[in-house]
Amino acid sequence: MEIRHDKWFIDKINNNLLQMHAIDGVLYSGKTKFQTMEILHSPAYGKILTLDNKIQSSEVDEFIYHESLVHAPMLAHPKPEKTFIAGGGEGATLREMLKYKTVKKAVMVDIDKGVIDISKQYLPDYHAGAFDDARSRLHYVDARKFLEESKERYDVIAIDLSEPVEEGPAYLLYTKEFYQIVMDKLTDDGLISVQAGCGSYLELLNLKSVKKTLESVFPIVNVYQADIPSFGGLWGFTIGSKTIDPSKLTAKEIDKRIKERGLTDLKFYDGQTHEAMFTQPKHIRKALQRGARLITDDNPLYLYESKGL
Amino acid sequence: MEIRHDKWFIDKINNNLLQMHAIDGVLYSGKTKFQTMEILHSPAYGKILTLDNKIQSSEVDEFIYHESLVHAPMLAHPKPEKTFIAGGGEGATLREMLKYKTVKKAVMVDIDKGVIDISKQYLPDYHAGAFDDARSRLHYVDARKFLEESKERYDVIAIDLSEPVEEGPAYLLYTKEFYQIVMDKLTDDGLISVQAGCGSYLELLNLKSVKKTLESVFPIVNVYQADIPSFGGLWGFTIGSKTIDPSKLTAKEIDKRIKERGLTDLKFYDGQTHEAMFTQPKHIRKALQRGARLITDDNPLYLYESKGL
Amino acid sequence: MEIRHDKWFIDKINNNLLQMHAIDGVLYSGKTKFQTMEILHSPAYGKILTLDNKIQSSEVDEFIYHESLVHAPMLAHPKPEKTFIAGGGEGATLREMLKYKTVKKAVMVDIDKGVIDISKQYLPDYHAGAFDDARSRLHYVDARKFLEESKERYDVIAIDLSEPVEEGPAYLLYTKEFYQIVMDKLTDDGLISVQAGCGSYLELLNLKSVKKTLESVFPIVNVYQADIPSFGGLWGFTIGSKTIDPSKLTAKEIDKRIKERGLTDLKFYDGQTHEAMFTQPKHIRKALQRGARLITDDNPLYLYESKGL
Amino acid sequence: MEIRHDKWFIDKINNNLLQMHAIDGVLYSGKTKFQTMEILHSPAYGKILTLDNKIQSSEVDEFIYHESLVHAPMLAHPKPEKTFIAGGGEGATLREMLKYKTVKKAVMVDIDKGVIDISKQYLPDYHAGAFDDARSRLHYVDARKFLEESKERYDVIAIDLSEPVEEGPAYLLYTKEFYQIVMDKLTDDGLISVQAGCGSYLELLNLKSVKKTLESVFPIVNVYQADIPSFGGLWGFTIGSKTIDPSKLTAKEIDKRIKERGLTDLKFYDGQTHEAMFTQPKHIRKALQRGARLITDDNPLYLYESKGL
Repeated sequence: MEIRHDKWFIDKINNNLLQMHAIDGVLYSGKTKFQTMEILHSPAYGKILTLDNKIQSSEVDEFIYHESLVHAPMLAHPKPEKTFIAGGGEGATLREMLKYKTVKKAVMVDIDKGVIDISKQYLPDYHAGAFDDARSRLHYVDARKFLEESKERYDVIAIDLSEPVEEGPAYLLYTKEFYQIVMDKLTDDGLISVQAGCGSYLELLNLKSVKKTLESVFPIVNVYQADIPSFGGLWGFTIGSKTIDPSKLTAKEIDKRIKERGLTDLKFYDGQTHEAMFTQPKHIRKALQRGARLITDDNPLYLYESKGL
Repeated sequence: MEIRHDKWFIDKINNNLLQMHAIDGVLYSGKTKFQTMEILHSPAYGKILTLDNKIQSSEVDEFIYHESLVHAPMLAHPKPEKTFIAGGGEGATLREMLKYKTVKKAVMVDIDKGVIDISKQYLPDYHAGAFDDARSRLHYVDARKFLEESKERYDVIAIDLSEPVEEGPAYLLYTKEFYQIVMDKLTDDGLISVQAGCGSYLELLNLKSVKKTLESVFPIVNVYQADIPSFGGLWGFTIGSKTIDPSKLTAKEIDKRIKERGLTDLKFYDGQTHEAMFTQPKHIRKALQRGARLITDDNPLYLYESKGL
Repeated sequence: MEIRHDKWFIDKINNNLLQMHAIDGVLYSGKTKFQTMEILHSPAYGKILTLDNKIQSSEVDEFIYHESLVHAPMLAHPKPEKTFIAGGGEGATLREMLKYKTVKKAVMVDIDKGVIDISKQYLPDYHAGAFDDARSRLHYVDARKFLEESKERYDVIAIDLSEPVEEGPAYLLYTKEFYQIVMDKLTDDGLISVQAGCGSYLELLNLKSVKKTLESVFPIVNVYQADIPSFGGLWGFTIGSKTIDPSKLTAKEIDKRIKERGLTDLKFYDGQTHEAMFTQPKHIRKALQRGARLITDDNPLYLYESKGL
Repeated sequence: MEIRHDKWFIDKINNNLLQMHAIDGVLYSGKTKFQTMEILHSPAYGKILTLDNKIQSSEVDEFIYHESLVHAPMLAHPKPEKTFIAGGGEGATLREMLKYKTVKKAVMVDIDKGVIDISKQYLPDYHAGAFDDARSRLHYVDARKFLEESKERYDVIAIDLSEPVEEGPAYLLYTKEFYQIVMDKLTDDGLISVQAGCGSYLELLNLKSVKKTLESVFPIVNVYQADIPSFGGLWGFTIGSKTIDPSKLTAKEIDKRIKERGLTDLKFYDGQTHEAMFTQPKHIRKALQRGARLITDDNPLYLYESKGL
């Protein structure tokens, strides 16, 4: 085979699969207070953000990830006014939330100020001014603690964290105890969306365990997925709701809301996308039923525990 | 990162992406008259068949590929009786076709007898007896020539070939001229399904060019896709039809037909799967419209020509 | 670059260097009581033996390693009669020792019977009958304990162990305390040879620490090296002596002894080889003086501790 | 195995061996008029210069390469006054030559001005002012043509070129016809040194073919080698002479000349180094006799033709 590049970034997808992405530049490489951080450049993906050697997003396909995480719960909610992001360093989740004119206040709590600072400098198109929006509130503290002590309630809470690794900053934001805090801080029709890891048939432990854990707290839980090339393929999300079932919304209704709410510039999300995302093939539906773990503070789940990991 | 394996198979997905799959055995490695062939063993995928260093199928997820290729056209057809497979070496496409009791004759034409012989020996679960079914007809000749000279017409024709590489045996089975031959040899309600390569956002040249080329011959053309982990993610298929539009079939109708036709053991295909497969997200729909090439005998398309390839 | 192979063995040379060797077969892959063991096949090296994912020897260049380890001390000794091997699983060290007709008894103590059994089966050319030689004595116990309790003294002791890894079976055979036991069990003109790891300029911590530790016990210590392609390049050995300085032997004297002792079939070792092996370039000589560690039972040295590791 | 880096440079050593070097920066990546050029940064090697994806030299071990190429012929010559470099882009070969006060004129002819310009900017320690030395003459033209048309004769000519690849700029500087031109342009006691590629046992085709080709022109030809970690191990050089045999110089004589000529800062070269470099082990000496090719303009030799390539 003809190999045209000599510089490669190795991404460990799981214990049986390494992805090597060609890179042509290292724009930044350093350590924040909490993790290693890099801004690489790739001929396929443009700029790539990595944290602790895992790709977090790329310039070329970050819209898929961020629109998935944000618009699934935001479109399902009748009128989101107060929103909350746990994590969200690059600012693109915030950017998507602020597209809703109904939003009066968007709180983003990311423990790692370093990620935001470096992202602002190197990835300005990600936040696209969101950090300067008068409706934004940034806090550089532990999101769980912040939420627990918050006096406010939110319509939509998006969990935009890197995957849980041992000793890492995020693993206590994937547990039943955390989701109970979220439940308390959601308004009556509130929804939580969670990026929940690999959506591929052979690597579903994270996704199905997040689903199971959400189900132990929320009456309505849905899984949805999108193909995100820089993440190595199909990616899973979960959404927990108090009253609203997003999977019941038709393509037509989604398209209507997108129009009504003035979301003119979505590149990924529309009615057909919504329908496809919330529909899983038979083998995935079955696999999601088997072998999930309840994630708790005492029994957390780390990336790379699943079969192939 | 902790790497638990020391033996790896490198799969060049495109010019910017190499996938390294852990392997723990080499069951067979040799050359047929037309190509190199290997049966590897992987902790994630079980047995893997490669041709010319590209993964063709794996034990663990071949059902996704073969059910996609076969049941999309077979379920859409009211009563498939005569079917044709171009390629199909391992026998699993034949296996799926023979599940229909209406099928009286299934012709499989693969130029490379070596692939069938080695597959029979090492991958018996793939064909599962299909080669010995009285309805099967095997021919080890060029599928295009065979079809051109055939006096018969077929209800469903499945193109189950490795991807077109320069000098390879398959590239003349992806052209407009070949699809015109297929058109002639299909019955009035006939359908052709084609495996059409990577379905990922950044690598759609093959898929959209096959689509465009089919559209130059068939009145109805659909794209559908499935996530096939051993192929590196989302995989694209196209289906050309004279009169029937498979995308119009509801999940309910698909489930009804599966039941009526006694397809009790499908692991992948059902109504929801069908709906999800035929629905593409917005950015993919748009990308499929742009920059496709018409593939002809004089202007063939080879794998690795697209942007990232 | 054109890559002609798709299956690769990854050898971690150090933390900054991975070597990928093309492989075309996996003849054996399993676990002994003490370690993982593989017999791979490579187009460059023929059969390769790995233990715990590290290449131990290859069919094509094992003669370089085994002749280096054995003939340096054996030729230096005036008349080796009793010899001892710590480790030596494949039997090739024993094979080289038994080439000396003066040898009456060659004791080999390797804790891992599994390695010997599998090597016998898959690598018969390595031992070449040595295990069946009437002068051979095999013991499958801990070599340190065996030597400590031995009532015999030996003319040459060869330490033929895999490199010391944490929790591995070998690390207590690289310490000052072990070398003191060896000192006691050597005859008055006895010599010990030790394979001592990478000999490359950037990775000398193991080699120089073994040298320093030997120097704390033996009056005469020499470093010598050979290029062993399957090991990734230059490889270091050390030799400790009570009275004899092998580096003082001229090329002429070595050639004379080889002839006198009837060593007609050496492929690597001769007078010029000897001279070149015992001569280090300036930067290596200087580097060997700096930053060595004394290895003791309480302060062992593990592979991958050095700068680049 | 624990892998501590995520960014790697792949160096194809031969068809059966890829080396992956950890990198942590890309200082420059571009194309000159003749080749691609990069300045990378590595935790092991510091800055690395690559041309057409092959490592040319690294900050940490370039002294080994450049001292080998230069001091072997320069020390052998009784009084080098006029010297010539074919290639030599980074300026370090020139730097070493100018250390001799006897040198009155040092001509360097490198066709690729881009390499010199970028090296000056990113690798100032390589030339260390050599380009500004009043004795230096730089020409950016084809070295063969320049030499052919030159009216001068030189005491030492060093061939410091990247390895010959098809269509590359260098392959006609490795042929018998070129060496005949060199022969003509050398003074009566003149010597030519040639970097001649991999010196490892399994990859000697280049080295032995350069040796054979030099032998077809020069009465005295020697092979010598050095271990250069960033090149992947043992590296081969050849030296052709009209009258002087450098291998006959003792360590003592070399050390004396180094002192007399005021070469106070050599890090690699001294008497012992010299002796070790010019002495090959038995298997290498034998391998150098077998299967060499005469390289001519009509029958050039390209990298990657040898067995393992």
